[in-house]
Amino acid sequence: MSKFNKLSLADVEEEGFKPLRKTYSEGGNKTQYSSAKPGSFKFKDPLTDFFKYIDYREEVYVQRLREAVAIKSVSAWPDHRPEIMKMMDWCQKWIDKLGGDSELYENPLKEQKLDDGTTIPLPPILLGQFGNDPKKKTVCVYGHLDVQPALLSDGWNTEPFELTEIDGKLFGRGSTDDKGPALSWLWMVEAFNELKMDLPVNIKMIYEGMEEYGSEGMFEAVNALAKPGKFLDDVDFFCISDNYWLGKNKPCLTYGLRGMAYFEVGVECGAQDLHSGVYGGTVHEAMIDLVRLMGSLVDPDGKILVDGVMKDVAAVTEEEEKMYETIDFDPEEYKKECGVANIGKGELLHKTKKELLMARWRFPTLSLHGIEGAFSDPGAKTVIPRKVMGKFSLRLVPDQNPKQIADVVTAHLEKEFEKLNSPNKMWVKAHHGAKAWLSSTDHPNYEAAKKAVENVFGQTPDMTREGGSIPIATWLEDATQMNVLLLPVGACDDMAHSQNEKFNKVNMMNAIKVLGVYLHEIAKIKGPKPSDCKCEPLSMEDMMIPGAFARGFRCKCEI
Amino acid sequence: MSKFNKLSLADVEEEGFKPLRKTYSEGGNKTQYSSAKPGSFKFKDPLTDFFKYIDYREEVYVQRLREAVAIKSVSAWPDHRPEIMKMMDWCQKWIDKLGGDSELYENPLKEQKLDDGTTIPLPPILLGQFGNDPKKKTVCVYGHLDVQPALLSDGWNTEPFELTEIDGKLFGRGSTDDKGPALSWLWMVEAFNELKMDLPVNIKMIYEGMEEYGSEGMFEAVNALAKPGKFLDDVDFFCISDNYWLGKNKPCLTYGLRGMAYFEVGVECGAQDLHSGVYGGTVHEAMIDLVRLMGSLVDPDGKILVDGVMKDVAAVTEEEEKMYETIDFDPEEYKKECGVANIGKGELLHKTKKELLMARWRFPTLSLHGIEGAFSDPGAKTVIPRKVMGKFSLRLVPDQNPKQIADVVTAHLEKEFEKLNSPNKMWVKAHHGAKAWLSSTDHPNYEAAKKAVENVFGQTPDMTREGGSIPIATWLEDATQMNVLLLPVGACDDMAHSQNEKFNKVNMMNAIKVLGVYLHEIAKIKGPKPSDCKCEPLSMEDMMIPGAFARGFRCKCEI
Repeated sequence: MSKFNKLSLADVEEEGFKPLRKTYSEGGNKTQYSSAKPGSFKFKDPLTDFFKYIDYREEVYVQRLREAVAIKSVSAWPDHRPEIMKMMDWCQKWIDKLGGDSELYENPLKEQKLDDGTTIPLPPILLGQFGNDPKKKTVCVYGHLDVQPALLSDGWNTEPFELTEIDGKLFGRGSTDDKGPALSWLWMVEAFNELKMDLPVNIKMIYEGMEEYGSEGMFEAVNALAKPGKFLDDVDFFCISDNYWLGKNKPCLTYGLRGMAYFEVGVECGAQDLHSGVYGGTVHEAMIDLVRLMGSLVDPDGKILVDGVMKDVAAVTEEEEKMYETIDFDPEEYKKECGVANIGKGELLHKTKKELLMARWRFPTLSLHGIEGAFSDPGAKTVIPRKVMGKFSLRLVPDQNPKQIADVVTAHLEKEFEKLNSPNKMWVKAHHGAKAWLSSTDHPNYEAAKKAVENVFGQTPDMTREGGSIPIATWLEDATQMNVLLLPVGACDDMAHSQNEKFNKVNMMNAIKVLGVYLHEIAKIKGPKPSDCKCEPLSMEDMMIPGAFARGFRCKCEI
Repeated sequence: MSKFNKLSLADVEEEGFKPLRKTYSEGGNKTQYSSAKPGSFKFKDPLTDFFKYIDYREEVYVQRLREAVAIKSVSAWPDHRPEIMKMMDWCQKWIDKLGGDSELYENPLKEQKLDDGTTIPLPPILLGQFGNDPKKKTVCVYGHLDVQPALLSDGWNTEPFELTEIDGKLFGRGSTDDKGPALSWLWMVEAFNELKMDLPVNIKMIYEGMEEYGSEGMFEAVNALAKPGKFLDDVDFFCISDNYWLGKNKPCLTYGLRGMAYFEVGVECGAQDLHSGVYGGTVHEAMIDLVRLMGSLVDPDGKILVDGVMKDVAAVTEEEEKMYETIDFDPEEYKKECGVANIGKGELLHKTKKELLMARWRFPTLSLHGIEGAFSDPGAKTVIPRKVMGKFSLRLVPDQNPKQIADVVTAHLEKEFEKLNSPNKMWVKAHHGAKAWLSSTDHPNYEAAKKAVENVFGQTPDMTREGGSIPIATWLEDATQMNVLLLPVGACDDMAHSQNEKFNKVNMMNAIKVLGVYLHEIAKIKGPKPSDCKCEPLSMEDMMIPGAFARGFRCKCEI
């Protein structure tokens, strides 16, 4: 922990960077620069000053991101675990330097077991805090400091751990996922400090180091930290910047994520793999049963063939349908992005924008991932595999329940297997399930973010969902009952998890700006702090009270 | 090359082994042993002497097999290539020591290309010869000196490369496949030498070192060596001991092998693997098409669903059906052997002996081996694979033609894919094909072997086929037009290719005996030497001449 310690703009010089002249109208020679010291900002329009200050610091932010990207905090590389610690330390020092309080919270699971049986320590979770005024609301940001693996030989055009700027794009592993967005919060706080602007809310930060490897220990940490009197107990609003815009140019807010139900269907026909020459024609081959079972789950046109799967899918409302009309999404662009354009006839499952978006966000889908136990190498092997496990999963939407889905999928497969009249052993295993997550676009948290985006970008953000899952969103909401906002700041082509990951410099700059305005908007919300009430959550009946659901209220006293 | 060099029975002592008393009635102390020197054998009944001599030498054969097994001549382990050379050298020295001529014939392909792009030399092919009397017929034996990989950790009960005797079973890699059988020919020659018995035929040996890795270069070598004046040109009969009895106790001769047509059916839906959360529901998944295509090929009851596949399958004759009645084969035992007994309902595809054997030998089958390109690891991965290749193969029988099969399979898959109405890219690739091989159980080569088996075992061998392929049988027959006999000497439970491979000591002993008698029977065959005639093979019309096919004659002058 460090004492609050103001920085001066002279840091720009100390760090060896010249101020950026282009966007800072006072010009850029040393004399002029000196005259632009914080004291010289006029606070007639604090936001203009805030924006100008941020623009002025562009090269500083790039350099700091370069430092962060150079730390190879790859959570999937066990021998790089110290690099995650180094990244945590780097970030903690910044919190302290900017006057915040910080703590390295021990990972509840302590150790990670590797495939070879050895164990390595799990990194702690970094907790940070700026301000603790009980009169102010508290916004908590979640982020992660670990990154996906990356090697130049994977097909990167530049060294993945050397931030490289090309045409305004900052290429490097972690630039957009999630170092760039996560660090934006620090630079936003720094700007408030420099401009002697009071933070309008208390800020809390919870940054982990294992997100790209399944967030080991994070679920347990969130539950422990949400207990009365603990770190997350007084948080009123959550904000996460760990997903992406739908397109390259238009900002969006994300209010829904699909859930998931992952399955294995296994068939076993013998005690050992058999030679197809010697035994072919005499045994009931497990693979023959399995491809039939897998083929019975879904039509080539994507229609799920399992009875009862659609039972709990919430009806589409008229209002909801309208929302899709204004969303900025180009099916042709999407076709190119997902690599379908030049294969075969180059057709997607749906043609219109609305159909495609609803198929990704609004309806369940079933995908076949592969088969374990069968021959899967290149070349030719004449084996009759003894035991094969088909892997498939469904993406779930409100109000589907993973348990009900597991029941109907199991019943379906048992019925289909019965039809095959096979003497083999068959089983269905439900791996893991998660309900879909859906927030309300009317929630004050979303309203605040919407206004912030409008202010910075001059346009209203699209309200989007995502087809995938971000488990932390559900964990935070379930543990605290507070609203979670997904506020993506990167573009759809940022290539998170892939080669040539990048963060547009303009996105980085706008992220810092938008976060500051967002905090101002949060501060303006009237009424009691959501975290003040720890009473019972609303019942289904309470939810019927006009406005209760729409306003995102979660407990009786808020009504 | 070495001069002919007689050995004496004293070798037994020199090699440090006591003679086996149990089967040699003269007893076993040193004095008695001395009196049993070759000169003391009475030649009233040469075969009895031959058998006695072999029984007497049992422990010597075990020790020599131990030496051979200790050489880790694994053709699939590139770094063990020198061990194959060592094994070749070991065997060549024995040929020379026993008075034969030998040659290491350079592998026509010279080098093997490894996956990492480097090359290693292919081992030569060992050619051996005992006797070259133009008045005698020439029998050529094929065998291989390389073995399958083996590690104790694979589940062996004993060190795989240390021959270990337990209850009369000789456990060790290569004991039965194919070192034990291949070396039997040498010990048989040794016995003739020792007993001063003239070899009734000329013997040629062609032993390779890459059989377990696809016989690289062997096809080319056989074709080159079959040319006029070359090594195989004067061979009259071939004999291969590289397959197994149908059961544990009753010997058999094998007159048929199924052919093969291996396929890949591929479907491609995109330029890169996709995340099922983000893209599920919008793309035509390749896996969904593929499992439908694979499922369309064959019924769960094993029936092939491809139109035209059965077109050329030869009709089953009454005579043929009768052959199955006497064959020693227990469906219950088979069920246990292939590991089906304790899985699910523990049922095979067929119930009766005849049905099962015909399904293995007489009818084509289609097996699904696996899928390349899909997720195949343990655990859960939410991928939509971009490109997946299903692997399957058919076993072919007379008179199916791999080319016709490739045509109907491709047509079937194209028709089924059309039905799916998928925009994806689909292709069918015929990997490799081989016609079935079928000899005649009436051929003099088979008649000779039948008499030899009757003499040694006191029972008529079953006439069997095999479901798998032994390509060398077809290559030798096609290249030379001479008859190939498959004379298995190991039991069905010898576990070739598997853990705990073994060769029963009694099988080893009987192998040496049966080979000697077989040569005597070959010598008795009347008429010209088959290799003397290099005239045109019989036309289909010629084959209709009574007896021509049954006698296995291949050319006009033999009729």
